[in-house]
Amino acid sequence: MSLSVQERKSLLEAWIAAARPFGAKVIAQVGGAPLPDVLELATHAEKLKADGIMTLPELYYKPRTVDQIVCYLQQVSEAAPTLPIIYYHFPMMTGVDVSMNKLFQEASTRIPNFKGVKADLGVAMEVAYLLREDQKIFIANHHIAPSVLMGHDTSIATVTNLFPDLVHNITSAVKNDDVIKARTLQKRLNELVNGLAAEGDFVPAMKTAMELVTGIRMGQTRPPLVSFNYEQRSRLKDTLIRLDVKLQNTD
Amino acid sequence: MSLSVQERKSLLEAWIAAARPFGAKVIAQVGGAPLPDVLELATHAEKLKADGIMTLPELYYKPRTVDQIVCYLQQVSEAAPTLPIIYYHFPMMTGVDVSMNKLFQEASTRIPNFKGVKADLGVAMEVAYLLREDQKIFIANHHIAPSVLMGHDTSIATVTNLFPDLVHNITSAVKNDDVIKARTLQKRLNELVNGLAAEGDFVPAMKTAMELVTGIRMGQTRPPLVSFNYEQRSRLKDTLIRLDVKLQNTD
Amino acid sequence: MSLSVQERKSLLEAWIAAARPFGAKVIAQVGGAPLPDVLELATHAEKLKADGIMTLPELYYKPRTVDQIVCYLQQVSEAAPTLPIIYYHFPMMTGVDVSMNKLFQEASTRIPNFKGVKADLGVAMEVAYLLREDQKIFIANHHIAPSVLMGHDTSIATVTNLFPDLVHNITSAVKNDDVIKARTLQKRLNELVNGLAAEGDFVPAMKTAMELVTGIRMGQTRPPLVSFNYEQRSRLKDTLIRLDVKLQNTD
Amino acid sequence: MSLSVQERKSLLEAWIAAARPFGAKVIAQVGGAPLPDVLELATHAEKLKADGIMTLPELYYKPRTVDQIVCYLQQVSEAAPTLPIIYYHFPMMTGVDVSMNKLFQEASTRIPNFKGVKADLGVAMEVAYLLREDQKIFIANHHIAPSVLMGHDTSIATVTNLFPDLVHNITSAVKNDDVIKARTLQKRLNELVNGLAAEGDFVPAMKTAMELVTGIRMGQTRPPLVSFNYEQRSRLKDTLIRLDVKLQNTD
Repeated sequence: MSLSVQERKSLLEAWIAAARPFGAKVIAQVGGAPLPDVLELATHAEKLKADGIMTLPELYYKPRTVDQIVCYLQQVSEAAPTLPIIYYHFPMMTGVDVSMNKLFQEASTRIPNFKGVKADLGVAMEVAYLLREDQKIFIANHHIAPSVLMGHDTSIATVTNLFPDLVHNITSAVKNDDVIKARTLQKRLNELVNGLAAEGDFVPAMKTAMELVTGIRMGQTRPPLVSFNYEQRSRLKDTLIRLDVKLQNTD
Repeated sequence: MSLSVQERKSLLEAWIAAARPFGAKVIAQVGGAPLPDVLELATHAEKLKADGIMTLPELYYKPRTVDQIVCYLQQVSEAAPTLPIIYYHFPMMTGVDVSMNKLFQEASTRIPNFKGVKADLGVAMEVAYLLREDQKIFIANHHIAPSVLMGHDTSIATVTNLFPDLVHNITSAVKNDDVIKARTLQKRLNELVNGLAAEGDFVPAMKTAMELVTGIRMGQTRPPLVSFNYEQRSRLKDTLIRLDVKLQNTD
Repeated sequence: MSLSVQERKSLLEAWIAAARPFGAKVIAQVGGAPLPDVLELATHAEKLKADGIMTLPELYYKPRTVDQIVCYLQQVSEAAPTLPIIYYHFPMMTGVDVSMNKLFQEASTRIPNFKGVKADLGVAMEVAYLLREDQKIFIANHHIAPSVLMGHDTSIATVTNLFPDLVHNITSAVKNDDVIKARTLQKRLNELVNGLAAEGDFVPAMKTAMELVTGIRMGQTRPPLVSFNYEQRSRLKDTLIRLDVKLQNTD
Repeated sequence: MSLSVQERKSLLEAWIAAARPFGAKVIAQVGGAPLPDVLELATHAEKLKADGIMTLPELYYKPRTVDQIVCYLQQVSEAAPTLPIIYYHFPMMTGVDVSMNKLFQEASTRIPNFKGVKADLGVAMEVAYLLREDQKIFIANHHIAPSVLMGHDTSIATVTNLFPDLVHNITSAVKNDDVIKARTLQKRLNELVNGLAAEGDFVPAMKTAMELVTGIRMGQTRPPLVSFNYEQRSRLKDTLIRLDVKLQNTD
C-alpha cells in the first residue's frame, strides 16, 4: 500500500522469478488500493500465473455487510479467474469487521475459487468446522504454536523472514508431538516480537531488524511510514543482542 | 476513490476545461490512494494549474499523530509546490481523528501553502480564531445556514449539485441578515437530504436523484458501491415528488 | 457517574432545594449506572417532582439498534411516569451511535413523555423538522450561537457555569438580530473553551477554572478522574489571565 | 452489570455459601459500575473472604492510558487489601484498549496483590514471559484447547456451565499429551458455541440453553437484555438436538 500499481507489478514479477527455481509458492496481495487498480493487479497476477491472490477489503467505501465483501471478492476473483483467492481479514488496519463465520459460508458458496482467509487463530477456530479439504486459514501473526497445535499449519507472519528456523522448529516440534518444546520456542518468539515492537512502528522495526540480523541492505522505509532514527536502531540492536540473536550487521 | 489514477487525471482535465470559461475554480482531491499515486496526482494538478489540491490522510497506515498528518501534507504539497493545499478531515470514512486545533496550528507553521481544511462546523468553530486572512474552512456537509451565519461561507456539499438555488438562497438570506429565511430554507434542505439518505448509500442516492432532478444521464455507480435498483429508484422519486421537487426525468 | 446512588439522590435533593426559590428548572440525569440503579434514580426524581429526567444509554450491554434504546427509555420513563424524559446522545463517551432521526421518530411514537434529546447541532438539524411543539433539542456543547441562530435556544453546556454572561449575551445578540455580535462573542467563548481544554481532562479543568473564576471552593475531582496538579493549575490561571478573564481566586 | 449493588452482594454471599462445601473458589467481579459502588463491592468481598476480586475498567470516564488503569486497580485493590486482584480486559464491551504488556508490567510493580488478567489467548501470549509463579492469565473465552496447550490451564468461559465435561475432557486430553483428541473436542465445542451464538445475544442464548440442557429454571434475562422468544427458543432447541446435545427440558 506504499507502492504504485506499476511497482507492485514489478515486485510480483521479481518474486515469481526468484521463487520458481525453489518451487516456492507466491500469493499476490492485490488489495488496499482503489478497485480499478485492484482489478488490474489481479489480472496481472493471473497473467503471471501466480499461485494465488489475496485481497484486503475496500478501504474508503468500507463494506458493512457480508454481502458487500463477497461481491467485492467476486469482482476481484473474476479478474483472476483461474487463481485461488484469499480474503485478508485485518480489522485493526481496515476498520472492516463482519461475522467471519457468515462470510466464510457465503464466500464458499458463491465464489468457486474462494480458498480461505488470512486471519488470527480466533477466526480460525470459529470457521474450522466449515473448512473444505481445499481451504485453509492462513494464520496472520506469529502465534505459530497454538495454531499448528489446532491443525492450522499455514501462517503468514512477517517475523518468519527474520527467524525462519525458529518458526520452522515450532512447527516441527508440534509434528513430533513435543508440546513442551513448541511452547518454549513460541515463548522465545513472543519475546523477540515484543522486543521488535517496543521501539515503534512494526514496518520500520522489521526493516531495521532485517538489516541487523541478515546483513542485507533493506533501504529506507517507504513514506508515509518513517525509518528508524539512529537511537531507535541502537536500542533495537541492544535488545536483539540481549535476547541472544546473532547479528550479521552491527554498524 | 473508485477511479484509477489515469481516470482521475482525465476527470480533472475535463473539469478544468469545463470550468475555465465560467471562471469557476477547480480543487483536485488527490488523496485516498497509495502515496505514490497521490503524489502523481498532485504533480498532475500542478501541471494543469488547478486552483488547489485537497487530500485525505493515508487510509491503510493510518496516521495517529498530528505530526504524521503534517508530514504527509508536506510531502503532498511538495509535489504541487505552487498550489494551495487543503486537508480533508472525514473521520467517519477514514478512521483518522486527531486534534484539529493542533493540526491547524502545526500545518499553518510548517506548510507555506496550507490554506485550510474541509471539515464540519464543529471543527470550524474550534479553529476559527486561528484562521489567517488567506485560510478557510470548507464546510463539508449541507449545514449551510449555521456555517454562513458563523462566517464560513465556503462549503463543499454534494447536494449543491442537486439544489444549487436552495444553497445559494440560504447564503443570500444570511447576507441580507434574514436569519428566519435562512433557517426556513435550511430546514427544507435538511428534509431533502434526509429523504435522499433514507433509501441507502449516499453516492448511488445522489446519482439517482441527479438523473431525476436534472434529466442528465449519470451512468452506473462505480463498484464497489452498487446502483439503486428499480424499487429504490421508485421510492426516491416518490419522496422527491412528495417534497415538491420538480423532476426532469420521471421514467 | 463518579457518585453512588445515594450521593446522586442527595445531590438532586440539594439542587431542587436550591433551585426552587429562583424558579429554576432541574432535570435529573439518571443514566450511566446499572439499570436497577437508573430505575431507582428515576423513581426518586419522580418523588421529588423534578422538572424532568434525562438518561444515557446502557454502558456495558450497549444497545446497537434504535429499538433497544427506545425499550430502555420506555423502562426508565415508566419509573418516572409523570416526568418528561430526555435521551442523552453522547457517542464519544458511550460508544452508542444509531440514527437519531429514526430514534426520534420511534421514541416520539412509543413514549408519551419523550420530550427531546441532548445532542449536538448536527443532530438538531437532522431532527428539527420532526420536533413537536413540546419537544426540544438540548444543545450539548458550547456551540451556542449557531444553535440559537438555527432556532435551538436551549443548551446544556458546562461552560455556562463559568461564563454565564457570555452565554446569555450570545443568546440575546441573536434575539436582537445582531449576528455579527453573536459571532464575535461565540469566537471568544470558543477561545476560552480551547484554553480550558488545553491543560488536560475537561472535568478537572472545569473544577479548577471554577475556583479561579468564582472563588468558590470546589473540592477534589472524584476518582477515577484526577485533580489538576500545581503546574496545570498555574498554566490554566495564566491562560485565563491572558484571555482577560477576571479571577476571584489567584492563589 | 444488570444488578444493583445490593443484589450483587447477595449473589456473592449465595455463591460463597454454595461453593465452600465443595472447596470451590469464588472470585467476585466488582467492576462495571460507578467507582463508589465498585469500592463498596470490593470491601464487601474482602469482608466475606472471597478468594479474589476482578474488575472491569471504568465504563464512562474511560481510561486511555496504562497509568489510569493501574491507578484504578490500586484504588480497588486498597478496598480489598488482602485479596488477589485480577484485571478484566474486554475491549469489545468496554471500549478500553491499551498495551497489555505495559499494563501487566506496571500493575505487577505497583500493586502487591495483582495476580493476573482475564483476557484472550493473544494477550496471554504477549505477557506469558512476564508471569510470576503466583500470576495467571484467565482465558476469557471458550478457546480452551489452544490455551491449555500453551500452558494456560485456567479459563473463565460461560459455556463451561453448559458443557463442563467437554471443557474438562479438553483439558485432560492435553494433560495426557493427546493433541488430536483435544483438537477434536475443541472443534465440537466451537460448533456448539456457534450454534448458541447464531440465535441472538449471548446472555439470553446461554440462559435458554441452560434450561434446555440442565432442566434448571433460569428465570428471565435481566433488562436491558431481552429473553429469547418462543421461535428463538425452538430454533435453539433444534440446533442443540441436531448437534447431539442431550436435553433435560424439552417443552
